Amino acid sequence: MWTDRKADVRDTSGKRARDSSPVLNRLMALTGDMIYLDKVMQDKWFVLQLAVWALRGVTRVILANNPLSGALMLAALYWASPWQGLLGTLGLLTSTLVAVILGQDSAEVWGGLHGFNGMLVSLLMGVFNSAGDWYWWLLLPVCLGSATTVFFFSGLSSVLDRWDLPVAVFPFNIVIVIYFLCTGPDNPYFPRRLAIPPSSVATNVTAVSATEVLQGIPLGVGQIFACGSLGPSFLILAGLCLYSPLQAFHALLGSAVGTLVGLSVAVRHECLYSGLSGFNGALGCMAVGGFFFMFNWKTHLLAIASAFLSAYLDIALSNLLGATGLPACSWAATLTVTLLLLLRGSASAYRIPTGQVKAPEQNLRSRSRWEAGSTVERESTDV
Amino acid sequence: MWTDRKADVRDTSGKRARDSSPVLNRLMALTGDMIYLDKVMQDKWFVLQLAVWALRGVTRVILANNPLSGALMLAALYWASPWQGLLGTLGLLTSTLVAVILGQDSAEVWGGLHGFNGMLVSLLMGVFNSAGDWYWWLLLPVCLGSATTVFFFSGLSSVLDRWDLPVAVFPFNIVIVIYFLCTGPDNPYFPRRLAIPPSSVATNVTAVSATEVLQGIPLGVGQIFACGSLGPSFLILAGLCLYSPLQAFHALLGSAVGTLVGLSVAVRHECLYSGLSGFNGALGCMAVGGFFFMFNWKTHLLAIASAFLSAYLDIALSNLLGATGLPACSWAATLTVTLLLLLRGSASAYRIPTGQVKAPEQNLRSRSRWEAGSTVERESTDV
Amino acid sequence: MWTDRKADVRDTSGKRARDSSPVLNRLMALTGDMIYLDKVMQDKWFVLQLAVWALRGVTRVILANNPLSGALMLAALYWASPWQGLLGTLGLLTSTLVAVILGQDSAEVWGGLHGFNGMLVSLLMGVFNSAGDWYWWLLLPVCLGSATTVFFFSGLSSVLDRWDLPVAVFPFNIVIVIYFLCTGPDNPYFPRRLAIPPSSVATNVTAVSATEVLQGIPLGVGQIFACGSLGPSFLILAGLCLYSPLQAFHALLGSAVGTLVGLSVAVRHECLYSGLSGFNGALGCMAVGGFFFMFNWKTHLLAIASAFLSAYLDIALSNLLGATGLPACSWAATLTVTLLLLLRGSASAYRIPTGQVKAPEQNLRSRSRWEAGSTVERESTDV
Repeated sequence: MWTDRKADVRDTSGKRARDSSPVLNRLMALTGDMIYLDKVMQDKWFVLQLAVWALRGVTRVILANNPLSGALMLAALYWASPWQGLLGTLGLLTSTLVAVILGQDSAEVWGGLHGFNGMLVSLLMGVFNSAGDWYWWLLLPVCLGSATTVFFFSGLSSVLDRWDLPVAVFPFNIVIVIYFLCTGPDNPYFPRRLAIPPSSVATNVTAVSATEVLQGIPLGVGQIFACGSLGPSFLILAGLCLYSPLQAFHALLGSAVGTLVGLSVAVRHECLYSGLSGFNGALGCMAVGGFFFMFNWKTHLLAIASAFLSAYLDIALSNLLGATGLPACSWAATLTVTLLLLLRGSASAYRIPTGQVKAPEQNLRSRSRWEAGSTVERESTDV
Repeated sequence: MWTDRKADVRDTSGKRARDSSPVLNRLMALTGDMIYLDKVMQDKWFVLQLAVWALRGVTRVILANNPLSGALMLAALYWASPWQGLLGTLGLLTSTLVAVILGQDSAEVWGGLHGFNGMLVSLLMGVFNSAGDWYWWLLLPVCLGSATTVFFFSGLSSVLDRWDLPVAVFPFNIVIVIYFLCTGPDNPYFPRRLAIPPSSVATNVTAVSATEVLQGIPLGVGQIFACGSLGPSFLILAGLCLYSPLQAFHALLGSAVGTLVGLSVAVRHECLYSGLSGFNGALGCMAVGGFFFMFNWKTHLLAIASAFLSAYLDIALSNLLGATGLPACSWAATLTVTLLLLLRGSASAYRIPTGQVKAPEQNLRSRSRWEAGSTVERESTDV
Repeated sequence: MWTDRKADVRDTSGKRARDSSPVLNRLMALTGDMIYLDKVMQDKWFVLQLAVWALRGVTRVILANNPLSGALMLAALYWASPWQGLLGTLGLLTSTLVAVILGQDSAEVWGGLHGFNGMLVSLLMGVFNSAGDWYWWLLLPVCLGSATTVFFFSGLSSVLDRWDLPVAVFPFNIVIVIYFLCTGPDNPYFPRRLAIPPSSVATNVTAVSATEVLQGIPLGVGQIFACGSLGPSFLILAGLCLYSPLQAFHALLGSAVGTLVGLSVAVRHECLYSGLSGFNGALGCMAVGGFFFMFNWKTHLLAIASAFLSAYLDIALSNLLGATGLPACSWAATLTVTLLLLLRGSASAYRIPTGQVKAPEQNLRSRSRWEAGSTVERESTDV
C-alpha cells in the first residue's frame, strides 16, 4: 500500500516533490484532503472503505476532510466519554450506510458528506439525554435520527444547489430540533434536559473569572463536537491542525470572538466558561476564512465579521429557542455562512465553487488552476 | 350525457374496452381521475361545471381527484355535522370563484386545485370556533380566509414550480395559522378553542385502551377532513376507495404508522383515540405510495418512512405550536412530502412529474407511455 | 448647477416641455424619481453625492425615491425627536458607507437602496431602548446593526432575484429581531422595552374614541418611520406627496384599512390610536397600488386586498412575536407584497419588472415604452 501511495503523491504534487526531502513529502501527504486515498481504497474491502468514509465524516463536522484527523477526533470523543463516542460512531455509520442504501451520489458518500450530520444528531441526543449514560433505548432514536439526516441532506441539496450553497449542518439542526420537540423532560421513554437561554438568569452577581473565560476559547472548539472537556478539545484542535493549521487558527480566533460577543451582551457565565458562546463563532470564522473563500486579508476580515454575526445570531436564537427549552445548536453559524456565501460585490470574487473546496492551503495553491478553468466550469454549472 | 360519455370511455381506454364487459367498463369509468368528464362538461352550464370543479376540489384534500368520490366525502361531512358541511361548501365555492375572478390557470381551476385549500380553512375555522354551531358571523372569516388561499396558492406555485413541487396544502396551513393568531380564546367576535400539545399532560396514568386505539386508525383518515366520527370516516374511506383502492390502503397504513409513532413517544390518549396522531401519517403515506412516486416495493418502503417522518414531525410541531395554543394542522405531512419529492438518488427515478400525477393505478399504466415521452418532456420543463 | 439641470429636464421630458410653462416645468422636475440628478452629481464632491444617496435612502423606507422628499422626512424625524433623528442619520450613513466598502453595485448605492434598512434598524433600536434618550452606548449597536443590513441585503438579493423580487425591508426586519433577541428588558448594557401583543389585554372596557381612531390614520403613515407624533407624520406625508400624490393617497387609504382591520378583531385601543394598526396596511397598499404594479382600477382593488392581508398578518405576527416581547415591525407588509408580486394570472400582467419601478405617475407614462421593449428585456432577465 505504501508504494502505491508514494506513486500517487508524486503524481499529484510532482513539481513540489523535487525540491523537498522524501520524508517531509510523506508527512505532507498525511495533511490536507488526502484525495489520493480514494484511488488507493477503491479495490479494498468494503469495511475498510466504510471506515475511511466515516473518518472523513468525523472531520466534516469541523469543516475538515482528512481520515487521520478524523481518527484523532474520534479518539478525543472516546476519551471525553466512551458512551458519547459509541453514540457518535453508531450515528456516523448508520447515516453513511443509509446513504449507500438510498443510492446517494457515491462521491458524496466517499467524501464523508453523509456521515457528519448523523454523528452530530447522535452526539446531541446523548448530551441532552437525562436518563444517564449507557441507556440502551437511546440507540433507537439515534439510528432513526441519523437515518433521517440523509433524507434532509438529499432533499435540501436539490434546493440549495441552485445557489451553489453547501447543505452543511442544516439536516442535523433540523432533525435534532424535531427530536427535542417530540420528547421532553417528562417523556417516559426518552427524557431530556432543557436548554437554558444564555440571557435568562439575573444572578450574574459574581465577577467573571478571566482564566475560566480563556479556558472557554479552546473549549469552544471542542463544543463543535458537543464535548466540554479541555483535554479532548485540544486533541480535536490537534487533529484540525493536521488537516490545516489555518483552519485551526481560525477556529481559535472565532471562538475568541464568540466569547467576546458573549461578554458584550452579558450572557450567563456558564456559557462563557463551557465554550458554548464560542463554538458558533468558531464555525463561522473557519468557514469563511480560507475554506469557502480564498484566504487573503480581505476574507480574513470577512471571517472575523462572520464570527461576530454567528455569535450574535447564536445568542439571539438561543434566547428564542431556549424559551421552549431547545438548544440553538449550530443554526447560527450555518445560517450566517449561507448568507455570506450568497454575498455579492467584491467578496464574491474570492468565493470558491462549492464542488472545488479543499483545505485552505490547497485552495490557495489550486487558485491559479481554478481561475484558468473557471470560464469552462461556469458554463457547465450554469442553471 | 351517457351516450357522450360512453364514446369518451372508448376513446381513452380503447384497448381495454375490447376484453372486458361493457358493464364493468362503465363502472371502471367512474373510478380514477375521470378526465374525460372535462370534455363532457365543457359546453354545459357554468353552475354544473362549478359543481364538478368543487367536487374534484373536495377529493384533492385527500390526494384524490374524482367528482363522485367528492360527492361521497361531502355527504360524509354533512352527515358528521351539517354546519361543518355548510362551511366546507362555502369555502370550497368561494375559493374556486375567487380563482376564476383572479384569472388563474383554467386547467388548475377545472382540476379543483383552487378549492381544497379554501375548504380546509373553512372546516378548521368551524372546528376550532368556540361560539357554537350556526354562529353566522363565522361566514365572514370563512369567505375571507378561503379567498386568501387563492393568493397563497398562486404566489407559492411561482416559487415551488422551480423544483417541480406541488403547492399542496401550504396555503391552508398558512392561512389558518394567521386566522388563529389574529383571534384567540377571548376574542369578542371570533372566540376559538386552544389546541393542546400532544405531550403536555402528565396524567397518562390509565392504561391505553386497545380497541379505542384501533378505532383511531380509520378516524385518522376522517381527521384529514377534520371529522372525528367513525361512520363518516368510513364513508370518506369508501369514497377514496372508489378513486383508488391503493390510496385507501396507504391511508389506513399511514394512519396505523402514525398511531404507532404516537405510542412510541407517549402522547396524550385523546390524540390516539381521536385519530389526530394518525392523519399526518396517512397523508404522508398516501402521497409517496403511488401518488407522486410510481408504486413498487421500494416506494412502498419509502411511503412507510414518509408516514413515520410525517407523524414524528407532527408531534414535534404540535408541541411547538401547541405552546401558543395553535394546532399543527397538516404542516408535518406537507413538509415531509415536499422533502421527499426533492430527494435525489435511486428514489428520484420513480418520481412522477407533478403535472402528470394521476391515480396510483393509472400512474402504473401510463408509466411506459410517460417513460417513452420523458426525454421530450424533460427538455420543455427544464429551467 | 441650475442651468445644467434645466438642460437635463428638457432632455428627459422633451415633449412635455413645449406645452407647459417653464416655472411649472422646473417644479415638476423636483417631483418623482429625479433621475437626472445622478448625472448632475456624478463629478461633484463625494460628501455631496453621499448626501443625495442618503436622502434617497430616507425615502426608500416609504417606497419613494426623491432626495427632496428625503430632506422633508428627515426634518420630520428631527422635529419629532432630535435623538431619533441622529440615530436614523447615523444608521443611514453607516450602512451606505459599508455598502461602498463592500463593493456593492453602484447603481444600488446611488439609488439609496443600501441606506433605508440601516436607518430603520437604528430608529427601532432607539424607540425600544429603555435607557432613555442620549444614551451614547446605543451608537455601538446602531453602527453594527446598520452594517449588518448590508450583508443581508446583498445575500438575500442573490436569492430573491431568481423571482425578480425586491429585497425590500427584509434585512431590517431580520436584523432588528436578532438585536431584540440578544438584548432584553434586564440587559445591563442595552435594556429594551417589551412589545405588547395587540390582542393581549382584556381591559377593552371603555368605548373606542372615534376622533383618536381617525388621528391614528395619518399616524399610521408616520409609524412607518417609527414616529408617533401627529405634526411630523403630516410632514412625512407632505414629503411623500412631493414624490407622488398617488403614493400618499394609497398610504392614507392603507392606513385606514389597517385601522378597520384592527377594529374587526378588537385589538387594544392604543394600537389604533398610535397608528400601529395602520402602518403595515399603508405599506402593503402603497407597494401594490401603482408602485410595483401599473395603476388601474384592478390593481387598485388588489392594493386594497393587499392592505387587508398586510394588516391581518401584522396582527397575527404581533400576537405571535409579542408573546416573547418582540414587535412584528413590517414583516407583514413585506411578506404580503412579496406574495402578491409572485401572483400568477391576470394580476401579473400589470406587474412592473423590479428594475424599472419608478414613481406611480412615471410608471404610467413609461408603460408604453416598457411594453415596446418588454420582449427584449424579458430575454435578458430570463434565468
